[in-house]
Amino acid sequence: MEYCFGVDIGGTTVKMGLFMIEGKLLEKWEIKTRTEQEGEAILPDVADSLNQKMEEKKLGKEQVSGIGIGIPAPVNAEGIVQNTANLGWGYKEVRKEMEDLTQMKVAVGNDANMAALGEMWLGAGKGEKNLIMVTLGTGVGGGVIVNGQPVVGAHGAGGEIGHICVNYEEEDHCGCGNRGCLEQYASATGITRLAGKRLKADDAPSSLRDRKLSAKAVFDELKKGDKIAEEIVEEFGTYLGHALANLAAITDPSVIVIGGGVSKAGDILLKYVEKAFKERAFFANEDTRLVLAMLGNDAGICGAAKLIL
Amino acid sequence: MEYCFGVDIGGTTVKMGLFMIEGKLLEKWEIKTRTEQEGEAILPDVADSLNQKMEEKKLGKEQVSGIGIGIPAPVNAEGIVQNTANLGWGYKEVRKEMEDLTQMKVAVGNDANMAALGEMWLGAGKGEKNLIMVTLGTGVGGGVIVNGQPVVGAHGAGGEIGHICVNYEEEDHCGCGNRGCLEQYASATGITRLAGKRLKADDAPSSLRDRKLSAKAVFDELKKGDKIAEEIVEEFGTYLGHALANLAAITDPSVIVIGGGVSKAGDILLKYVEKAFKERAFFANEDTRLVLAMLGNDAGICGAAKLIL
Repeated sequence: MEYCFGVDIGGTTVKMGLFMIEGKLLEKWEIKTRTEQEGEAILPDVADSLNQKMEEKKLGKEQVSGIGIGIPAPVNAEGIVQNTANLGWGYKEVRKEMEDLTQMKVAVGNDANMAALGEMWLGAGKGEKNLIMVTLGTGVGGGVIVNGQPVVGAHGAGGEIGHICVNYEEEDHCGCGNRGCLEQYASATGITRLAGKRLKADDAPSSLRDRKLSAKAVFDELKKGDKIAEEIVEEFGTYLGHALANLAAITDPSVIVIGGGVSKAGDILLKYVEKAFKERAFFANEDTRLVLAMLGNDAGICGAAKLIL
Repeated sequence: MEYCFGVDIGGTTVKMGLFMIEGKLLEKWEIKTRTEQEGEAILPDVADSLNQKMEEKKLGKEQVSGIGIGIPAPVNAEGIVQNTANLGWGYKEVRKEMEDLTQMKVAVGNDANMAALGEMWLGAGKGEKNLIMVTLGTGVGGGVIVNGQPVVGAHGAGGEIGHICVNYEEEDHCGCGNRGCLEQYASATGITRLAGKRLKADDAPSSLRDRKLSAKAVFDELKKGDKIAEEIVEEFGTYLGHALANLAAITDPSVIVIGGGVSKAGDILLKYVEKAFKERAFFANEDTRLVLAMLGNDAGICGAAKLIL
């Protein structure tokens, strides 16, 4: 039992990694996700690809601890999904099907939880056991780790950080149907929305007026000293930092990892989020560290591999 | 291993229970908590009392699985407390000391987490594995159970539900030093505060004007049809229900248990909290049940007993 596999199934590609069980990523590769015909080929494709890799490396099943799989949907403790937005699957017993296909041990988790687990195992939260990861991408995703284990919850919907309400006065709707979700302020889309509203509010000069609005543009102009860009990042940082302070009071993490495309803005982002976090953190959580994610797109395969161990 | 003990150490009394491991409470009793001299007598007193009970019942150590203990302070995973507000203890290795005193297996947890575990084992959350308990007393306490285990956290401060911020505009301070904590709206003290502010706001007639204000008075007058009392309970219910919706998005419980003195108001309280919860719950959490606690003061000994099993 020296090896294990981590698999991260996305709507476009399936990422896979072969790991040593002590945490060394030996090789990674990807295949296309074939979502047609209710995604019926996805798991057989993954099984074939893993089998090929084992033949290529001359690995026997007795050397492999198992296969961890991350899925972009709620997954319950038995490895069952009810529905997926991007894979074509309806109800599917992912763990059982994959065990039947490979005759190896399989564990299945939600992709955001896997990313959090990956950062805990090999990334920004290395050595910690209580961690929250928030992923700022098109939306806001989250994974919560308590005592080394991802919080799955009763419906496989634990860690839905993007959908806690942070503004009860909000009139625009979130994709989920509610109003005032964190995702409306802290995702790439949300930051762009805040920027548009701020620029419309008055005629204050800003270099943002000459650019196509995006979260990246806002952080770029902030770094060049634009005052309006700073106001927008302050608003983003306040919503996110206050939300994280509330989360910390619930699960008491030692570290909060911020990842996703928006986090590429770097340390300057952390500065604004940290300020708001410290303003509102419960005293027991004041030394909780806020850090940037380290594993990028590999977080998912790393966490999936850790899940099986 | 047919028996176990549950111990709930409070600032005034220590409650103790002898349980069958399958969940039957055979006997309960209490002793005074001697907090003088930094509480040095507390654990020896508990050990003596348990020994006496074992002699009385003719129980040998080989028949007892161990002793679970709840403490009114953050407790880390090793059973160590850093400080206690009510027991006189500073840093104390509670588990180790108690194991030395009794030569039995000991587990130690925070009292609010123990109450949540107790309701899960034998009370309003029986059969569930993902549960949040919120205790509305002088303050607001909380216990979060994920996959059958209490969320302890990095500093033993998991589940500090009373100190999530629910109103960033609040100007009054909470006991913790922050402003806008749930405790300022949903504890007995908080409801009394809301009532005082509402009555001062105008001269609207209310039977509350003839009574000494208290949370109980507010619910009593609501039951008699007082409109101002209803406004106050609506405000309380909105803050609590919205906060619980946010918590549900994080840990995805199947059931939320509401306990503490305020919960004695009964089903009418649940109605106002549920309304606000459903307004804001993430769709995956819409069928989460809100229920009243069932075990009253026994929740702590029940949860402590469960912790050792």
